[in-house]
Amino acid sequence: MKIILDGMGGDFAPAEIVKGAVQALEQMDEEIIIVGQQKAIRRELKKNHCKSERITIVNAEETITMHDSPVKAIRQKKDSSMVVGLNMLKEGEGDLLISAGNTGALIVGSRLILGRIRGIDRPALASIYPDMVTMQPCLLVDAGASAESKAQNLLEYGLMGSIFMEKAWGRENPRVGLVNLGAEESKGTSVTKDAYNRLKNSPLNFVGNVEGRDVPKGVCDVIVCDGFVGNVILKLTEGVSLSVFKLVKQGIMENLKTRMGGLLLRGQLTKMKSDFDYEEYGGAPVLGVNGPVMKIHGSSTATAVRNAIIRGIPYARENVVDIIRQEMFDLVDSEEDYE
Amino acid sequence: MKIILDGMGGDFAPAEIVKGAVQALEQMDEEIIIVGQQKAIRRELKKNHCKSERITIVNAEETITMHDSPVKAIRQKKDSSMVVGLNMLKEGEGDLLISAGNTGALIVGSRLILGRIRGIDRPALASIYPDMVTMQPCLLVDAGASAESKAQNLLEYGLMGSIFMEKAWGRENPRVGLVNLGAEESKGTSVTKDAYNRLKNSPLNFVGNVEGRDVPKGVCDVIVCDGFVGNVILKLTEGVSLSVFKLVKQGIMENLKTRMGGLLLRGQLTKMKSDFDYEEYGGAPVLGVNGPVMKIHGSSTATAVRNAIIRGIPYARENVVDIIRQEMFDLVDSEEDYE
Repeated sequence: MKIILDGMGGDFAPAEIVKGAVQALEQMDEEIIIVGQQKAIRRELKKNHCKSERITIVNAEETITMHDSPVKAIRQKKDSSMVVGLNMLKEGEGDLLISAGNTGALIVGSRLILGRIRGIDRPALASIYPDMVTMQPCLLVDAGASAESKAQNLLEYGLMGSIFMEKAWGRENPRVGLVNLGAEESKGTSVTKDAYNRLKNSPLNFVGNVEGRDVPKGVCDVIVCDGFVGNVILKLTEGVSLSVFKLVKQGIMENLKTRMGGLLLRGQLTKMKSDFDYEEYGGAPVLGVNGPVMKIHGSSTATAVRNAIIRGIPYARENVVDIIRQEMFDLVDSEEDYE
Repeated sequence: MKIILDGMGGDFAPAEIVKGAVQALEQMDEEIIIVGQQKAIRRELKKNHCKSERITIVNAEETITMHDSPVKAIRQKKDSSMVVGLNMLKEGEGDLLISAGNTGALIVGSRLILGRIRGIDRPALASIYPDMVTMQPCLLVDAGASAESKAQNLLEYGLMGSIFMEKAWGRENPRVGLVNLGAEESKGTSVTKDAYNRLKNSPLNFVGNVEGRDVPKGVCDVIVCDGFVGNVILKLTEGVSLSVFKLVKQGIMENLKTRMGGLLLRGQLTKMKSDFDYEEYGGAPVLGVNGPVMKIHGSSTATAVRNAIIRGIPYARENVVDIIRQEMFDLVDSEEDYE
């Protein structure tokens, strides 16, 4: 298998990207193609004393930055690492694309270059969301690819998320929940009520509405919501948990007695913080396009890049995209039978 | 001033409601009218050895439960403590109504019995949201009165929230922020983009978009969002902070060393938990109706009832409702001048 890596995307590119790639090589047999400015990447490989034949470089002179407008960037920067990488994935020159670059551009690029899967109205960004009870990863779809969603989109998010969790993460019969403002079927907006019915009547293992307070408790494997709410959930979870940790730290620093208490608890607190570390859980798949694409955080370090590569392998190997395509084909087909 | 208390609303009514009222008497000179089943309330007053002339009872035989459909309950249960209380507020027999009863019914009842303020399209439920840095209370509007909102509604939430924070909480020139999925003006749904412009062009102290991760950081005094997102924010904040505390507790229980650490930190952790305790911050005002109504949590204990009464006084005394009415009158008036 060949993994295409956007060598120029993210705050610490290409240094951390290349370092992460080199680290990943030690843990797997796959090949990596790094796309980007050849000179810079070669320099980084040298720094990491990497002479492996399993890493190759494909040159791309341009870089899409965080400030670029997504559509414009994809259309105009034809020789950017992201566009070149997406075209390589499309042509079958690689099996998976990973990028820490501009999220909007990656989603737009995936849609424009790879194309939507037939039957999928809107591709989604799915984010790994570790629950706070068992620390098992759940999948939050949509994490912000679209700000608004129709009921049918929410159904598609549930379907794609369910396939991803089953195939790429080995979760059996994934439980799908719908974020809503109450547990009862009658609650919510016209869109969530409609989505509730569609999910209930689908072959998915739909467990009903999930309220905000239950989202972090691992009550389902796939958390379905529109991209606006998904974005708020992800960022608020980060904001609240970091704030609580900060308050605990302040409490520890208060006096000699509490500082001693903090010292005795240091191991546990450090472990907790690393459990919350999104870098451990790999990347966020872009679902609904004709090829496996993963987004990693813009501030990804080498560790995050390494984990995303290792964790990303099953996404490609288990043919998640083909299975979604087949499911949608069957679904659209059966709907056409009705007409 | 006379405070009308729904004696039968909430999980622990009338016992905790009456007990809270008795406790509040000791801290203020106002009068309290408890509405509900006279016998039961009298029994509770006796239990609390209360003979104060500042507490009176108004009988109401029916009770609206948590399972009642809001509109139906308000229309049919004319002799319920909530409906009788709202009618008393309307007739000027009291200056403020506080209820721990069915939230939906209280909002519907406020709208139907007191009426919307002219110019306000949708009343909102505003919830006190303590920030996690300075532990200062912010106001989240809408906390769930409506599942969907138009741009104009969001502007109204900002306006009403701003007046409430200034008058009832003494916050000077309150900073108003709009929950959105990015900080930039161009981000969001068609509704949030439109609301951004309206807020920017209003006389409010608008500080722009607020992302999920900044919501708990006290970056503004009034957090504006639709009721769906507001509900998710409130419940998720509760879910995440409780989960983190639980994990810290688990870490403490791990072995003898960590248990000793926990012992040394006990005071700080207890204080932190009480900082997060919503009961400390009083009730949630229903804004946009012709009378000051406050909702308190269904599981409110006597402490929460007492705090809500004490904290609620400025809501009535500072004429928040009149000021909102005047502001809306001026606004609608000036808009009509244009036509």
